[in-house]
Amino acid sequence: MRAATIGRFYRHDFLPLMQTHPSTRFILIQTSHAGNVGATARAMKTMGFDDLVLVAPRWANVLRREETLQRASGALDILKNARIVATLDEALDGVTHLCATAMTPRDFGPPTRAPRQHFEMLTKAKQDATTHANGGIAFLFGSERFGMSNEDVYRCHVALSIPTDPQFGSLNLGAAVQLIAYEWRQALGGFGTPVRPEPVETSGSSTGSGRTAILADAQQLSGMLAHWEKALVGIGFLDPTAPKKLMPRLNQLFNRAQLTQEEIHILRGVAKAMTAAGSHPTPAATGPAKS
Amino acid sequence: MRAATIGRFYRHDFLPLMQTHPSTRFILIQTSHAGNVGATARAMKTMGFDDLVLVAPRWANVLRREETLQRASGALDILKNARIVATLDEALDGVTHLCATAMTPRDFGPPTRAPRQHFEMLTKAKQDATTHANGGIAFLFGSERFGMSNEDVYRCHVALSIPTDPQFGSLNLGAAVQLIAYEWRQALGGFGTPVRPEPVETSGSSTGSGRTAILADAQQLSGMLAHWEKALVGIGFLDPTAPKKLMPRLNQLFNRAQLTQEEIHILRGVAKAMTAAGSHPTPAATGPAKS
Repeated sequence: MRAATIGRFYRHDFLPLMQTHPSTRFILIQTSHAGNVGATARAMKTMGFDDLVLVAPRWANVLRREETLQRASGALDILKNARIVATLDEALDGVTHLCATAMTPRDFGPPTRAPRQHFEMLTKAKQDATTHANGGIAFLFGSERFGMSNEDVYRCHVALSIPTDPQFGSLNLGAAVQLIAYEWRQALGGFGTPVRPEPVETSGSSTGSGRTAILADAQQLSGMLAHWEKALVGIGFLDPTAPKKLMPRLNQLFNRAQLTQEEIHILRGVAKAMTAAGSHPTPAATGPAKS
Repeated sequence: MRAATIGRFYRHDFLPLMQTHPSTRFILIQTSHAGNVGATARAMKTMGFDDLVLVAPRWANVLRREETLQRASGALDILKNARIVATLDEALDGVTHLCATAMTPRDFGPPTRAPRQHFEMLTKAKQDATTHANGGIAFLFGSERFGMSNEDVYRCHVALSIPTDPQFGSLNLGAAVQLIAYEWRQALGGFGTPVRPEPVETSGSSTGSGRTAILADAQQLSGMLAHWEKALVGIGFLDPTAPKKLMPRLNQLFNRAQLTQEEIHILRGVAKAMTAAGSHPTPAATGPAKS
């Protein structure tokens, strides 16, 4: 049973991700402590990662604050190349696999796993892969005080939960980044283990097209979902005043499918047609989603 | 040769340690930054350890300094019970297995190993042990500026080296404590990851709903797709005289997502709403699928 589940899981969710050396991004959302930004840069650099994006940090000048620089120690190049953006969406270009970091599982959210467990599944998926496409991975960290919002967690493919003492799970943000960066680096083979270049494959089997399929990134998925949301309201299926968990559910469903850009295009076409059809009065509109 | 070495090694060095739940001590030698003492306390507590000893810290009052308390967050009991001693010897009562933490191997020193590798050997030693005695383990951390002295490293059974980027091995002291504490806790069996109730069927992890998720079978999927086909024609998206490969594509997409019965229900609701919306004349109908 378990093997079957894993097999099904990684065939559909993981294959596209791991092809050679996935690009790895760390995203801090609404961080309030400058010292933690510095600690994050240092932690990333010790593990050989360099792509840092801050979403709506408390301090606009956080990359240049004294405490940031102090805690970054020698990792100043990470800060120098870091980006600050206003919304999570802007941080997700090129990312196809999103890992939330969250202490508590959410209903309707992605599965919760320990980092080592999840990374082993990713690695195994890579070894078993015969076809795959491009993709990057991002690790999302919420604010020191409130963690990640449900909305952000819902977008992710997995919620990584670092195993801590049930009596005291209060990991420092920089420490959490350090642990994730370390585990991910270990999963990638660690240092000193050369990674062989993988052949470029086409993923015909997943699209049925026989052509190279380019995975949609999280930004494109989110744009399509926004389009759908509008369309579902338009045809009277989604009640915006009582949306229930419809959109998070569709998000999870499409995450599992690992959509290609071509499929995003098709689904946007469906949304467009729905909107056109829904722009006329609908006497016998169906009710909103039940759940 | 290698097996013999390991066998000899753990027979003499490891056996006494692992018998049930070894006492674990963290020892900071000549620490100069109060913030790191606080971070150490917090890191230890998240991993369920509580025995902290400081050898000749720079600040005599380091356990009560403001920066220490701040960085310790809620781990104040660790600080309260911590001891300050003048020499390493005084910190080693009850300890039978000493682990140095050092970036660079020393001549004449103990073997250098990655923490995970060493802890796996300890765990294996425990499993193979038939007789053993009492003993505790201690992790030693040198000063921020100079690391550990050769003299202190020579006393240890192993030098643990956390694998870092060869270009940038500058781990923060608190981060190093966090990684060692984490790896050691994992080796001791770890804490569980908070898990929502697992569904009965194999698809539970993929839906993330926390409730029982029953996979839709092929018949249910095909019924839903037929419903969608009709609806897509109804809203003018699908031209039945030139359907191209739209339905096979959607079929593939939903196959990859491994739909649950509940999701089938939602998608049928969408189809129903589309049909209702499409049952009115659509002057500006969008064209059929392009591919």
